[in-house]
Amino acid sequence: MVALNERAWAILQKIVENKDELKVRVFRSRGGAILVDAGVEVDGSIGAGLLVSKMLLSGLGNVNISYAHGQFGVQVLTDSPIFACLASQYAGWRISVSGFFGMCSGPGRLLGSKEELFDKFQWVERGVRAVLFIETSNVPPQEVVEYISDSCGLHEDDVGIVFSPSNSLVGSIQVPARVVETGIHKLMEIGYDVRNVRSALGFSPIPPVGESVLDAIGKLNDAIIYGGKVVFYVDDLTDLSDIIKRVPSDSSDSYGLPFSEVFKRSNGDFYSIDPLLFSPAEVSMISLRTGRLYHAGRVNTEILEKSFR
Amino acid sequence: MVALNERAWAILQKIVENKDELKVRVFRSRGGAILVDAGVEVDGSIGAGLLVSKMLLSGLGNVNISYAHGQFGVQVLTDSPIFACLASQYAGWRISVSGFFGMCSGPGRLLGSKEELFDKFQWVERGVRAVLFIETSNVPPQEVVEYISDSCGLHEDDVGIVFSPSNSLVGSIQVPARVVETGIHKLMEIGYDVRNVRSALGFSPIPPVGESVLDAIGKLNDAIIYGGKVVFYVDDLTDLSDIIKRVPSDSSDSYGLPFSEVFKRSNGDFYSIDPLLFSPAEVSMISLRTGRLYHAGRVNTEILEKSFR
Amino acid sequence: MVALNERAWAILQKIVENKDELKVRVFRSRGGAILVDAGVEVDGSIGAGLLVSKMLLSGLGNVNISYAHGQFGVQVLTDSPIFACLASQYAGWRISVSGFFGMCSGPGRLLGSKEELFDKFQWVERGVRAVLFIETSNVPPQEVVEYISDSCGLHEDDVGIVFSPSNSLVGSIQVPARVVETGIHKLMEIGYDVRNVRSALGFSPIPPVGESVLDAIGKLNDAIIYGGKVVFYVDDLTDLSDIIKRVPSDSSDSYGLPFSEVFKRSNGDFYSIDPLLFSPAEVSMISLRTGRLYHAGRVNTEILEKSFR
Repeated sequence: MVALNERAWAILQKIVENKDELKVRVFRSRGGAILVDAGVEVDGSIGAGLLVSKMLLSGLGNVNISYAHGQFGVQVLTDSPIFACLASQYAGWRISVSGFFGMCSGPGRLLGSKEELFDKFQWVERGVRAVLFIETSNVPPQEVVEYISDSCGLHEDDVGIVFSPSNSLVGSIQVPARVVETGIHKLMEIGYDVRNVRSALGFSPIPPVGESVLDAIGKLNDAIIYGGKVVFYVDDLTDLSDIIKRVPSDSSDSYGLPFSEVFKRSNGDFYSIDPLLFSPAEVSMISLRTGRLYHAGRVNTEILEKSFR
Repeated sequence: MVALNERAWAILQKIVENKDELKVRVFRSRGGAILVDAGVEVDGSIGAGLLVSKMLLSGLGNVNISYAHGQFGVQVLTDSPIFACLASQYAGWRISVSGFFGMCSGPGRLLGSKEELFDKFQWVERGVRAVLFIETSNVPPQEVVEYISDSCGLHEDDVGIVFSPSNSLVGSIQVPARVVETGIHKLMEIGYDVRNVRSALGFSPIPPVGESVLDAIGKLNDAIIYGGKVVFYVDDLTDLSDIIKRVPSDSSDSYGLPFSEVFKRSNGDFYSIDPLLFSPAEVSMISLRTGRLYHAGRVNTEILEKSFR
Repeated sequence: MVALNERAWAILQKIVENKDELKVRVFRSRGGAILVDAGVEVDGSIGAGLLVSKMLLSGLGNVNISYAHGQFGVQVLTDSPIFACLASQYAGWRISVSGFFGMCSGPGRLLGSKEELFDKFQWVERGVRAVLFIETSNVPPQEVVEYISDSCGLHEDDVGIVFSPSNSLVGSIQVPARVVETGIHKLMEIGYDVRNVRSALGFSPIPPVGESVLDAIGKLNDAIIYGGKVVFYVDDLTDLSDIIKRVPSDSSDSYGLPFSEVFKRSNGDFYSIDPLLFSPAEVSMISLRTGRLYHAGRVNTEILEKSFR
């Protein structure tokens, strides 16, 4: 396995070096962990959003701004989608320490988090550093930093944590940059062996920042669910005609309403929402073995317009 | 304040080093100023257009070719829009010396030009070099170089001047690359405090080169007025619902005709044209404070087609 | 003449150094030629497709992924279209040695291939290395490597050969990256002096990999013929109104059917197909002298959809 945290650490260094231009705030925890505020007490920037996104792919992919369908969006390219998106980018570490709560993503999860995923794929990271990102509206307190470094079995000064709220400029870039990851996760959800996924391209529009965390989460989900487009290159000999129909978001019964509305109807219980809804709007799978294209879903500009206004 | 001219100088060096590939001509004035012809007696190139555009942002942003709406265009991204666009890129220095006339842009203006803007924002550049661009169909004569270096209080050999006509390949890239700047200028025009603008994204189609300076100016203005799209990220708590309607070009009474026609109806008097017309076709403002999106205008492909044919 | 093979060699080195990430296999021929399998026994990658494409332009241009018309595509930019596309990228060397057959492209052709083109333009490459690409489903045997190095008058260890099938991930990128080259070739076909072409922009969608070599060739041709868009900047004073109509693919009588159908109707004889069909769907010529735009053709999404499904 490639050293994901080492790769992510190099990008973290770049963020630290360019902190002024990127409009992030860099400071140290008591024990020396590198903390980067990318949106809580600072503006952050488009550049920071792109670098954080790339860091969360452990550098195994590119993230760029692209203009399409009359909207600026995030374009993602990766030839290591499983390492970049699942092992690194996926927000699979739920951190809840002394009143602080946040979803934690990044390759540091391989060292500190216990996730089914890691056993399933038998990933072993022998890194001596951990790089993480927390989507939060609060500066992570010292207890959280200690909890993370302890969990990773590392000294604090070998840990780097970037954080930013959902409703921030960096948030509005780093979440859409998860469009490929969201698709891979949906593939897992429906039982597809995602180790077949060899390369991927993705596009998601950049939503407005959002008036609150909840509003932002609604718009960010809509960006992917109704505006996301992904192409997967898969190493698969089988017929994917049935699989593909189940991949895009429109395979969910909850499809068709802005996410904020879906959330309301679930009485605010995120975990009661149909997990099949979380997927890009439009998905292609192209088999590297048979050469066949499978395609389903479509970008839904009507709902995007309703959501983003 | 960041050293804008130093940043621009580094990009100028890159242009000089790659002069053959970029198809520009580099020479020295009598006193040693670096002069770069990017379109008067040479073809210039797409690469030169992009580098000149980046130089004019003092490197505080990216300029790329992008394909959208069935047209190749210029995509601009900046996290320092005020320094990049107003302090650097804006063509605010009107140079008229011994019969030579040209609009001068670039960070060197901070040293040599007297503009209201500089007092207003209390910008102080302590650079020891000046980088400028002149939109002109003629090679600037020695008198102009001396006038510029004298105005900047610099020796000639600390001055770099790139120049190119409006109707040139470089012209057809570096002007659309002003799409964000045009939007910021319009914001100023309607009394908005542009220091609130923290980041920006822009797109403008690349028009044909144009059959004459006048034809080029028409098409270049139309590219932005009818094809330009900008997103501003602003640090602003107030309701921008009224402001936003006044930002796009369609807020002007002169909107609706190709610029060449507007120009004709003004009897060829550029300065009698409604200044409110000079703005991108479509503008979004997203508040980093409230998270709200404000949007007005639309890309007008019908007029673009008429203009570009 | 710029040292095309030296430029291409530098990019080949980059491919070799990043072979794991790019998912290509690098090995040596008996006499030390660098061989890079980018799709026969390996998956290859999007990154490899982009680098191979750039290598085939001898570095005199950029190739990027771009999202437009709801499709991911390849965007090409070059300020040296004749060297990049004709002298380097064009697949003009038909190699047929002891049962191995493949079309060979790349700047190494200048040393080893005898093509009318070279006499016509009096190109002389004095390189001491040769870089080539073969579109093939088979690993080129030792005899082919020897034939190539002998033809180039070089030791085997000064030769680098990348190869990949038409129906591979790399194939589905490096062929669309020929969209500008295809347009230049069509210009030559109709008798236009292509030395006038000074800069070019191109876009072509990326088709699915294809179920067979034949299916891939059909889709790859359709990508350019029905989805390709090119802008040429030409140094030309003459009226191009008549020329332009003859440039896009729709100037051919065979236009209107997916390429696989055209191929069938030609009874499988590639060389009996109207050569005028091979051209981008939509072409603009912009004169750097007169500033005029000439435009013809249009992207045909209906046929693309039929072809790519």
